Formats: sequence, structure tokens, C-alpha cells
Amino acid sequence: MAAIKVMDIQASADVQNRRLAKGFMLTRVGVTGVKKPVRVVRGETANTLFCTIDVYVDLPSTQKGSHLSRNLEAINEEVEKSLRSGLPGIEVFAAGLCRSLREKHEYSTYAEVRVTADYFMQRPGPSGKPNLESFKIMAQAVSRNTDVLKKMIGVEVIGMTACPCAMETVREQYGSNVTMEDCLPMISHNQRNVSSVMMEVPESWDVEANDLIEIVEASFSSPTYEVLKRSDEAKVVLQAHLEPKFVEDVVRTILGKVLERYPDLPDETLVTARSESEESIHKHNAFAERVSTLGDIRSGA
Amino acid sequence: MAAIKVMDIQASADVQNRRLAKGFMLTRVGVTGVKKPVRVVRGETANTLFCTIDVYVDLPSTQKGSHLSRNLEAINEEVEKSLRSGLPGIEVFAAGLCRSLREKHEYSTYAEVRVTADYFMQRPGPSGKPNLESFKIMAQAVSRNTDVLKKMIGVEVIGMTACPCAMETVREQYGSNVTMEDCLPMISHNQRNVSSVMMEVPESWDVEANDLIEIVEASFSSPTYEVLKRSDEAKVVLQAHLEPKFVEDVVRTILGKVLERYPDLPDETLVTARSESEESIHKHNAFAERVSTLGDIRSGA
Amino acid sequence: MAAIKVMDIQASADVQNRRLAKGFMLTRVGVTGVKKPVRVVRGETANTLFCTIDVYVDLPSTQKGSHLSRNLEAINEEVEKSLRSGLPGIEVFAAGLCRSLREKHEYSTYAEVRVTADYFMQRPGPSGKPNLESFKIMAQAVSRNTDVLKKMIGVEVIGMTACPCAMETVREQYGSNVTMEDCLPMISHNQRNVSSVMMEVPESWDVEANDLIEIVEASFSSPTYEVLKRSDEAKVVLQAHLEPKFVEDVVRTILGKVLERYPDLPDETLVTARSESEESIHKHNAFAERVSTLGDIRSGA
Amino acid sequence: MAAIKVMDIQASADVQNRRLAKGFMLTRVGVTGVKKPVRVVRGETANTLFCTIDVYVDLPSTQKGSHLSRNLEAINEEVEKSLRSGLPGIEVFAAGLCRSLREKHEYSTYAEVRVTADYFMQRPGPSGKPNLESFKIMAQAVSRNTDVLKKMIGVEVIGMTACPCAMETVREQYGSNVTMEDCLPMISHNQRNVSSVMMEVPESWDVEANDLIEIVEASFSSPTYEVLKRSDEAKVVLQAHLEPKFVEDVVRTILGKVLERYPDLPDETLVTARSESEESIHKHNAFAERVSTLGDIRSGA
Repeated sequence: MAAIKVMDIQASADVQNRRLAKGFMLTRVGVTGVKKPVRVVRGETANTLFCTIDVYVDLPSTQKGSHLSRNLEAINEEVEKSLRSGLPGIEVFAAGLCRSLREKHEYSTYAEVRVTADYFMQRPGPSGKPNLESFKIMAQAVSRNTDVLKKMIGVEVIGMTACPCAMETVREQYGSNVTMEDCLPMISHNQRNVSSVMMEVPESWDVEANDLIEIVEASFSSPTYEVLKRSDEAKVVLQAHLEPKFVEDVVRTILGKVLERYPDLPDETLVTARSESEESIHKHNAFAERVSTLGDIRSGA
Repeated sequence: MAAIKVMDIQASADVQNRRLAKGFMLTRVGVTGVKKPVRVVRGETANTLFCTIDVYVDLPSTQKGSHLSRNLEAINEEVEKSLRSGLPGIEVFAAGLCRSLREKHEYSTYAEVRVTADYFMQRPGPSGKPNLESFKIMAQAVSRNTDVLKKMIGVEVIGMTACPCAMETVREQYGSNVTMEDCLPMISHNQRNVSSVMMEVPESWDVEANDLIEIVEASFSSPTYEVLKRSDEAKVVLQAHLEPKFVEDVVRTILGKVLERYPDLPDETLVTARSESEESIHKHNAFAERVSTLGDIRSGA
Repeated sequence: MAAIKVMDIQASADVQNRRLAKGFMLTRVGVTGVKKPVRVVRGETANTLFCTIDVYVDLPSTQKGSHLSRNLEAINEEVEKSLRSGLPGIEVFAAGLCRSLREKHEYSTYAEVRVTADYFMQRPGPSGKPNLESFKIMAQAVSRNTDVLKKMIGVEVIGMTACPCAMETVREQYGSNVTMEDCLPMISHNQRNVSSVMMEVPESWDVEANDLIEIVEASFSSPTYEVLKRSDEAKVVLQAHLEPKFVEDVVRTILGKVLERYPDLPDETLVTARSESEESIHKHNAFAERVSTLGDIRSGA
Repeated sequence: MAAIKVMDIQASADVQNRRLAKGFMLTRVGVTGVKKPVRVVRGETANTLFCTIDVYVDLPSTQKGSHLSRNLEAINEEVEKSLRSGLPGIEVFAAGLCRSLREKHEYSTYAEVRVTADYFMQRPGPSGKPNLESFKIMAQAVSRNTDVLKKMIGVEVIGMTACPCAMETVREQYGSNVTMEDCLPMISHNQRNVSSVMMEVPESWDVEANDLIEIVEASFSSPTYEVLKRSDEAKVVLQAHLEPKFVEDVVRTILGKVLERYPDLPDETLVTARSESEESIHKHNAFAERVSTLGDIRSGA
């Protein structure tokens, strides 16, 4: 095999660029599962996030292939920009990448970027002592035709829900056994819950992932904590039973807190809130979701 | 604790049904990850599929909670129906369940059902000998307001793609080493590819999962096989290199074959085709997708 | 490309069989993630399980490759045997496959088979009404040198645990608020728990997966159920709080029930019991495990 | 509920510490899936890795529960140590944590720590230009009785394998079609391969994760790259076909390179090498593994 003569000329076969007489347009063509570090600098805090990135553009019916290596070049350029000088958020990274995709794929009328990363943040425990808690942070950006590019930032938070229905039914069914005044809440089933909120960040606005984490964390029956001294564990249990919540309640609480926290964001701002309880009394999960604009939520719908 | 007096009366606390002055409507509330067997009888073949089921309905702003146990009752009724007398397909199961959800949640204006299952089918190997190959089968059903219920059936198939671009570049770059006439195809990179097609099944039409499997299988560079004798392995490798394909080509081939196979399905029939290659030369995947109606595809868009 | 002349002779290149002067022996070589249906007939019940199968043999230092297609041939032969006449259990399938691997790989001194499948079983709900609940069933078989082949059967069950420690601490910390006699159990945190037991099945003995499911299900604070009427939900919640359990307690209860159920199984019988709680108050899980022989457990160690 | 009187005294219910007359010892009790950042400083490079951590200790038969919160305290102390002053590697983090677990669980005779993290490293592309590639890095530490604590470091790398057997068979079966001298390698199937090596790091020795990455990367048919210009893609394809490899070959190459790289590590040093190919011509994977001591590998076994 040593006899292979490698030609010195640069290969020029641009198979992707070939013309098709009768192809079909494709809605999204791209690469998924690209892992890269992105450096986020916000005020005094610098974080290097380990991101998983999916990017897509559309493809006209007349062109054989999308140039997938351009996606990686675009990703690398934005990654290097972030490592060199820091970016204010992964949604800004996603937006910059989305713009770059439209430029590099000159035939595209659509580009989409999705980014997720593990994220850590100091959170006060039940007794006030701060602790590093882990979260997931997500960003999206979409550019369509000549529309303004839309970017979104979101967080996924693990918390605890206690069931209000079981609590009431226990009271009705077994409640004659307890003195009802001056007593602790009834027993119920409670469980790990995974909730998220994803918010559009309109041009010239800013939405902080840290604020979204606080909003979701405050929407559970109780936040969860990695370290709990025994007496703090009791406080968390009591707290959860004083605020029993369905997945429906968690989503609605998130929506209410979003309205309070962002009174000035425009009505057309998109928001998705979601809550999933890994039910302790069932083998399946309970799920609730709202996909909406802020305007619709404001109108009480 | 033995002293607990269990009350004989049936608990009546319908916390879910409570009125809210100022809630928010919820887009989807339901249960996810329910596992149940569903019996499908089609012609002479009976299969019990092990399904994973997600179901959702919407919830008005004035109602505290969705009655999640009604979802399980609906699922169980449809499962029992299938075990008793067989259903012609899991999309029929999904549609029946969707209808039942609308009835049981009298406040709902929307219901959605998603079902996935492993699936086995006899497929001829490269030398014609049949073998049991594994697939994934999916179904969805959506009911909105008074619209006709939409149901969809889909399949996910594992196959093989060989890259046409690398093949051309190898030819250009190293091709002087070979006699070009009468020769084997050039080397390229090839890889595992996971492709799927999901088709709407309009009322009074029938779309067979088995046909969709054949369509997707025939759209790769080559199908894959669980058992390959050495000489069959060589045939598969040759076949894949004689039909090099990008993910874009796989999706377009699926679309073309769908048009051929279903010339009479109405123009508004929804179809989604998707292909993802676990690239052998990269750590990430290549992805292509078309989301469309048959009409748009027929028009050559 | 039409000019390719396919030779009529059968290819004979047995690259795997090539001699190596200086290789290294390999502990395990095989195929993973093979999906096949296996038919289990036990008494009056016939089930076709959708199995995921991993198989391995060792490889001497002098041989270049293991003949992986022989693994698939062995799998297919055992699958066909099961589809034709039914096998009494997936551990019998695993054992037959293990024996076949040793024969087909004449150079092997070791063979290992692992099988997992979803499994459904009618279980009585809290009010006695039976319901189809889902489980995971696992089997292993190992053959080493001329030792008797070892086969194992196991189950994975989802249940519920309520924390005994939080319950006590709540009582101490907030307990003066309640009249202590004649009262309901204290609130605690409770959660989804996934527990499993894996038992060796010595030659000429029989261990039923269904019995193992009953053992694990009875070792939680409470079993879980797919459908619960409101009053049944309250019963489950009460039951769980009357039997608060750490993951340690769940494993020990399983071990105790195994001793009771199998008094005659030989002392050298292997058993592994495991419990993992998806803690509702933490983002991480709690885990406990015992790997042992029945003899060691019987001796109270 | 406002009437709940919170007692000022610290809760003292140490349920875990309760004596059991007749329990069973437990092999491993602990917490899994704890996510924490760990700061690694090695020479001039500082990296904050996002780690997923599992920790376990054993539990005597006479003690009701393991104090799980001590595990989190131990984790937090080591995490803070790393964030404050940097640690030379995650295996040193694992070892420190393992020691701390033995101290905090005074009843333990065994402790085990497992850590995994995403990892990035500059690697030269086929044309020499460096690029950030992603890897997985793993560490383990085990302390048993009064034995010296064992610590291990490992890496998981994604690469590419081309099948030597298919290549030979293609040559035999279709080879008369090509002029055999002076030609390119035959076509074959090739695929994504995930390989790993895990090495014990004996006291007073050092094993660099970066070196292990180089070893595994050099053991594939070809490394993989996130960005490839067209001509580089052809080089990678050629390279892979010039070095066709079974999973068996990948493992043996890793072992050979480990022997070369670490001639002085003691014979009893543990090493595990593993390779899994996501076969492009099959729906299942091919797998090979060696679990051994350096001494056994050196002896040519």
C-alpha cells in the first residue's frame, strides 16, 4: 500500500453543490450532538459551560447537499470568540451562531440553533448556608427569511412536589384520627419533579438564566438541596406539605412569577413552561405544559 | 399505629375539580411513560407490542387540575379492547384512546396521544434467506376542537449510508493509483444511520407500518442485517458503495418512494421524513428532515 | 459500475482465524444490543418477550478475531427454538445460548450471556382489582472452563419509599403540635424507588420471575400502581407512611424474603439485591446493594 | 397552618444509627448522580470539570442506616478544596474523597468513588491544524480494610474502525475487477467506535489522562475530527482503510501502547481496555475487552 501516490492538488469535488433537476426542499439539515466549551462572562462571574449543540439550515430542492463542515466552522468561530473574550450568555452564543449559519449557507432561508449545558449556582440551603446546586441551562435561536432573529434562554430545575389531592383525601378518609386544630399537614405522596421555563429574549432586552432558576425553584412545593442536616430535612418536608402542588400548579406558578418579574417585556414574547413529576405512587410521570406568548398569559387566558 | 380508624365512606375530595378565579389555561396536561401491551391483528398476523404511551389534554384556566387517573382508565380500556379482540394497528389504538380522552375530560378542547414500541419483521437477507430484523414503530393521534381527529403511523429503521462526497474526493485525490475502467467503487466513510418516516392516515385510508419499513429500508445506501455470512457481508459493502448517500439523499429517497407508493392519498396528508447518520469520521451526527404535506411534495417543492 | 464481475466462488478469507505471533488474550469479545423476541411458556401462560441481548466469549492471544457472526447464528437458533416450542424462562434461553456459544467458538474457555426485557404481570391493586403492571426481567448465564454453567434470573420493580428519618425528625421538631395517641403517621419525604433482585438458579432448581416480583414489590414502603381511584391513593399513601424505609431497609427486606421463600436452595447460590431511591428532597439518588451467597446471608452476615 | 410551633431544639433522632439485632451487612450504600464542578490544575492548565459522582461505603449488619448526608459533606469538602487550590487530577479528587468517606463513616471497612466528566483537549487535525475535540474522563478510588487505597484514571474516546474481514472478502469476491498493484485499499464497512482505557495509578506514580487519550486515539483505524476540509476527509478515509481493525485489534493496540508508555509501572497495576463498534452493517454493536494486570499483559498472556 506504500505505493499510493497522494496528489498534491487540492480536491475540488463539491458534491454537495451539485444541481438537482428534481429534488425536494428539506426543512432542516445539519449536525447534532456537537460538544464544545463556551465561556460566559456576566458581571464579575466567568463560567466555561460544556455545551451540546445542534444546528440546522434548510436546503433548496435544487441543491444536492448542505455543506455540513461549514456548520462546524461556524461553531468553532463562535466558540473561539467566547473563549477569547467571553459572551454574556449562551443565548447570545446561539444567536451569533445562527447569524453565521445564514451567512455561510448563502442558499438558506432558515437557521436554527439549540444549546444545552450543565450549570452550577450557589443557592441558599433551608438554614441559609449557601451550597452549589446543579441545573441545566438551554438556549435556542431561530432565523427565518428576513424576520428578526429570535433567541430564547431557558433553565431546567429539579424540585419537589407534594400532592394536594392525596392530602385532602387522607384528611377525609382518615382525618377523624387527628385533632384538627393546631396540627401538622396531612401525609401525602411527594416526589422528584423536573420543571423548566424557556423565554424569548427580544432584541435589546436581557433575561438572566439565574433569575429563571429562582423563578422555577420558587414554584415547587419545595426546592431540593444536595446537603441537608437532619433538622433542615424536616423543614424541607414541612415546607413541601404546606405548599402541596400538582404539576399544573407548578406551571401556573412559574407563569405568574414570569409576569411579575418581566412586566415590561413585549406581549409577543414567547414563553414555554413545563413540569414533570416522577410520581412516587405510579410507575409513570405526570406532565403539564403551557406554550404561549406573554400577551396571552397577561390577558388571563 | 394500629389504632388508625379507616373511614368506610368513599373519599369525595375532588381537588382537581376546584374552580380557580385566576388560573392560566394549560396547553397540555397528562401522563408520560405508561407501559402497556397492545395487541395488533392484521390479516393473519397477530403481534402483542410492548408500548410506551404518553397522553395529554388541555386544561381551562378555571379548573385546578386535570383528572390524571382518567387517562389511565382510558388507556386500560383501550388496552383491554386490543387484548380481547385485536386492533388493526397502533395508530388505531392511538386514535381510539384520543377519542376516549376527549370524552372523559369533558372540559378538553384538545387531546394528544403518542405511542412507541419495538417491532420485529421477517426481512430477506442479501442472499434471500429471511431473518427477524428489529424496528421501532410509532403512532400519534391528535383531536382539536371539532376538527376531524388526525392519526399518524410511523417507523424508525436502522440502515447504512456511505458518503458520496468522500468517495469523489478520494477519486480526485488518490485516483491516479487505480485503473478507472471496470473497477470497484472508491473507498469512503460509511456508518450507521437511523431514519424514520411518519405519515398521516386519513379517515377511511390505510397505511401499513410494514410498507413504511420497506420504504425506509430501500432508501439507505444499504439495509443492515443481523446475520451476515462472509460473502453476504461483501455484497452489503459493495451495495452501499454503489449507492453512496448523504442524509439529504436518504430523506429525499423516502419522500420519492412515499409519492410512488401512495399516489391517491389526499394532498393535505402530513408526512415527516428524517435521517440521522452517526458519522464514522466525526464525533457528532449528520441530520436531515422534511416536514410537509403530500401536496407540497407532489408540487416538487 | 455495472461491469463489476461477481465471482461465483464462495469467499474464503477467514481473517478472524489468522494466527498471531504476539497478541494478547481478550477477556470478552462479542456483540451487544441485539434485539430479538423470545417466547416463554410457563404452565398455561405464553409470553413473547422483546429481549435485548449481549453475548461474549473470550479469545486466545494467538487468534486474530472472534467470529462474531457465529454469535448471531447461536442467538437465532435459540430464538427459533423458543418461537417454535416455547422455553420455560429467559434464564433457560440464556443458558442454552451460553452452551451454544461455547460449542460454536471452539477456542473459548468462557462465555457470558445477558438478557433484559420489559415484562407485564397482573397485580392486585389496593382495592383488590387486578391491573397490568410493568416490570423489567433480566437473565444471565456464564460458562467458565469445565465448571457447571451458572444461570441467573432477576427482576427490576418500581415502588415507593417513605423516609423513616425525616418522619422521626418531623415528630421531634414539630411533634408538640399534634396529639400523639391515635394519630396518623407523621409527614415525611417519599419517592419513586427502583429495586431489583438477581438470583442464581442452580441446576435442577426453579426460580420464578413472578415470585421475585412479588418479593421485591412487598419490600417497598408500598408498591406502586398504574391506576388509583382517589380512596385507593389515600390507602397507598397511608401504607407507605406506616412502613417508612431507607434503601437499606428495602434491600434487607428483599434478602429476608428470599431466605424465607427459598429455604432449600444451596448455600453457594448467588444473590444480588439492589435498591435506588430517586430522592424527592435531593437532586441525586440514594443507593444500597448486597452481593452475596445465600449461605452468607443465612449465617446472618 | 400558621400555628405550627417550630421547636428550637436541634433534632436528635439519629434513626440511621439505630442498632439492629438481626440485620444483614450491605456491600455498598451511598449516593449516585451527584453533580459538582471539580477544578483540575496540571502544570499551566486549569480546567473546571463538570463531574457526575457516585460514592459508596459498606454497612455492618448491626446498623440500621448509612449517614448519607456525610457523603455529601465529604463531596463538598473535596469540591471546595479543588475550587480553592486546584487538584492535579480527578483521580486525586476521587482518592481524597474515598479517604474522607472512610473517616466520616467510622463503621466502614470499604469505600468506593466513581467520577465521570466531559473533557476537551486540543488535538491536531489531519492537516496539523489544532482543534478542540471532546472526550470523557473517568476516575475511580477504592479503599478496603487496611489495604492501600487504589485509584484509577481512565478516558473514553470516539474513533473510527474499518473492518479488515470485509475488505479481504471484497478483494477475493470482486477483486478481479481491479489491477492489484499500485492501487487503493479495497472498500469495507467502517463505523463509529467508542473505546476506553482505565489504568490504576499506584501510589507515587502519575498517569496523565492526556496521555491515555493519545494512546486510545492512536489505536483506532483512524481518529475522528470535528472539522474536516474535503481533502482532509479523504485523508482520514484513506488512513482508516490502510489500518483496518476489528474491536479486538483496537483493544490489543491499546494494550501494546500501554506497555510501551509505562514500562516501569509495577506488575500488579490494574488495566481495563474496551472497544465497542457501532457496526454500520448491523443494528447491534461489536465489543471487545481486556481486564488484567500489567504483569499478565507483559507475560504475553
